[in-house]
Amino acid sequence: MEVEVNGRIYRAPTQPTVVFTVDGGDPRYFDDALDRGLMPCLKSLLSNGATYARGRGQMPSLTNPNNMSIVSGAPPSVHGIAGNHYLAPDGHEVQLTDPSFLRAPTIHAALHARGAKVLAVSAKEKLRRLLGAGDVPSISAEEADRHAVPAYEIQDVAALVGRRQPGIYDWELSAYAMEIGLAMHREVGLELLYVSLTDYVQHKQAPGGAMADCFFQRFDELLGDYLAEGFVVGVTADHGMNAKPRILYLKEILIAAGISTIRVVLPITDPYVVHHGALGSFAWVHVPAADRTRARETLTGLVGIEEVYTREEAAVIYQHPLDRIGDLSVAANACTALGSSADKHDLSHLRDGLRSHGGRHEQIVPIIVSHPLRPTYTAWLHSGVQNSDLHDLLLKGLAY
Amino acid sequence: MEVEVNGRIYRAPTQPTVVFTVDGGDPRYFDDALDRGLMPCLKSLLSNGATYARGRGQMPSLTNPNNMSIVSGAPPSVHGIAGNHYLAPDGHEVQLTDPSFLRAPTIHAALHARGAKVLAVSAKEKLRRLLGAGDVPSISAEEADRHAVPAYEIQDVAALVGRRQPGIYDWELSAYAMEIGLAMHREVGLELLYVSLTDYVQHKQAPGGAMADCFFQRFDELLGDYLAEGFVVGVTADHGMNAKPRILYLKEILIAAGISTIRVVLPITDPYVVHHGALGSFAWVHVPAADRTRARETLTGLVGIEEVYTREEAAVIYQHPLDRIGDLSVAANACTALGSSADKHDLSHLRDGLRSHGGRHEQIVPIIVSHPLRPTYTAWLHSGVQNSDLHDLLLKGLAY
Repeated sequence: MEVEVNGRIYRAPTQPTVVFTVDGGDPRYFDDALDRGLMPCLKSLLSNGATYARGRGQMPSLTNPNNMSIVSGAPPSVHGIAGNHYLAPDGHEVQLTDPSFLRAPTIHAALHARGAKVLAVSAKEKLRRLLGAGDVPSISAEEADRHAVPAYEIQDVAALVGRRQPGIYDWELSAYAMEIGLAMHREVGLELLYVSLTDYVQHKQAPGGAMADCFFQRFDELLGDYLAEGFVVGVTADHGMNAKPRILYLKEILIAAGISTIRVVLPITDPYVVHHGALGSFAWVHVPAADRTRARETLTGLVGIEEVYTREEAAVIYQHPLDRIGDLSVAANACTALGSSADKHDLSHLRDGLRSHGGRHEQIVPIIVSHPLRPTYTAWLHSGVQNSDLHDLLLKGLAY
Repeated sequence: MEVEVNGRIYRAPTQPTVVFTVDGGDPRYFDDALDRGLMPCLKSLLSNGATYARGRGQMPSLTNPNNMSIVSGAPPSVHGIAGNHYLAPDGHEVQLTDPSFLRAPTIHAALHARGAKVLAVSAKEKLRRLLGAGDVPSISAEEADRHAVPAYEIQDVAALVGRRQPGIYDWELSAYAMEIGLAMHREVGLELLYVSLTDYVQHKQAPGGAMADCFFQRFDELLGDYLAEGFVVGVTADHGMNAKPRILYLKEILIAAGISTIRVVLPITDPYVVHHGALGSFAWVHVPAADRTRARETLTGLVGIEEVYTREEAAVIYQHPLDRIGDLSVAANACTALGSSADKHDLSHLRDGLRSHGGRHEQIVPIIVSHPLRPTYTAWLHSGVQNSDLHDLLLKGLAY
């Protein structure tokens, strides 16, 4: 069986297939953990025909745009989710979490409509609703004890896993999301599974941190459990992660430059502020047309700002939907985060320093495929693959 | 008949098909000329089902990488041409003009091998050899009087056109390249034609300049001639163009920062220095590993520098071949050009100010298709199309 989704053809899986999106799963975590022997299962896979390449994620390097690109195989210009958050036409800032914002079907919805057994599991509830668009059976680790999965007649997910979920700021929440997928598969026999983790650990610790080590060791154990169940496994990330010791407060800077009517929208914004204080390396600036050139020149002149584009330019360069972005799109360098004004950001939870994402320097993600690929797909993997290509690789590229 | 080229399927054209790559054809030239009524033929096309979108070119926004992406349908990581020029492993800087540098077949070569009548015409001789890879019949306007086209038994191209070619710094050289294609088609009946122009005019004048007006008026007349011959026409550009009043001399800056063993390679470099003095918005820096972090920090701290990536990062973010780029890749903003040291650049020909390209801000190009497209292709055109997709649009996307 084949389905066409957003102009691309996918084959229904012939063996259970799972994609893990490691939120904030910068390749440097994998490389470090592999080097120090913390991921024996992945290491063994890589000596036996698995491939691991570095690929690109979508800009901005944020959770919602990238997750939706991974499950739809399309850029934000097609699926419509260019941030976690945006300025709606009515002047309110809105979380982009409702499926009504989605403008393209997902691969999972298309296969589900044709009768395939699919499931989407997210660590955070905020992402579950988008992943569940098109009646895709879905469950979040965060609220595993509060929701059933009626499509598979599962009333008590926590009972199926064998324990209640950890808290939202517990490193084990991501492992729990993977455990849900495994338990559900053992119960109902899934064909295509998507599991999206959370980046609390990566915001807190660089590669080699004690909690990061726990996270990747447990990830590796669960990877082994999935392989033992006969899964073909793909691993990618929505974005990488960098320490960001510098913060530029754009609203303050623009007001100091004499531009008063201004609105800074930070598309990293989500309900989980402990992670990052809503500070990332990407911002949208809304500013009246008369001040736009001056605002652009002011921003372009700042050390730490990399890219400043008009709405029309950003739509082309980033493949963004024109109506969901700002008058100016602003991206910062690896060590710089962008805020609105200092009083709008609670940094009290960032005692160990801010680690965040959103810009080009967090656009590099791992692309791992557990099974050998056909030569043309291997070539692709090493010449510009994107995280949005991973389902194509898994569903069409396997060497058998 | 279908051919697979670099992982994509193309159909042989069922009517004569041509792609014009307007070197330096920033969409702002087309918009300005359309607004002022200088392109009546294109205007009429656009009211009759033609499409005109803005798309992305390849980085760096230079002639050779983009032309090769347009004719191969693949990024520089696949075709191997990441600049006009690079630092070879033997330590010499080399022009990337020899077909032996090319690592992927072109669409034209694949169709030619299957018996289709194809031709590649370039304004400049430097590009002709790459376009002619795989035995594709090719001719340059620059040396039209010095070469025959034996595949079609044409001994005297200038006689076929009816006049001798203009000089390399004459705005009419591009028109002459288009005239060659037309004359050759009338003589031998071409199926797929590629015509790549030169950006001398765009380096010299902004939209609205007298010479730019002549260029686009004549382009429009010739477009009409091609349509009258029954051609399906695609138009794109290799890159845009911006005025660059600021120049950063990277070697001087890095030496001042205490980094002495350094080599700055400017991939815009070509034999035609009058255009731009080898100054564009992209540079490769070769620097010993011990100094690399400091060099990166120095460059990242400069106003006017947008992106600085290591070799491994650049390979992923720009889809570049690892072995043909520098230890650091550096891109500048719209108004900044990058040089090596002041004594290496002859600015005497730039009395009217430098206009150049190479960075992200010249990555936006027109994508014009003369005939109606099927809905999925129209959607693609408005959601992230690249110049490397134009042959796909023309050979698979037409609505009939």
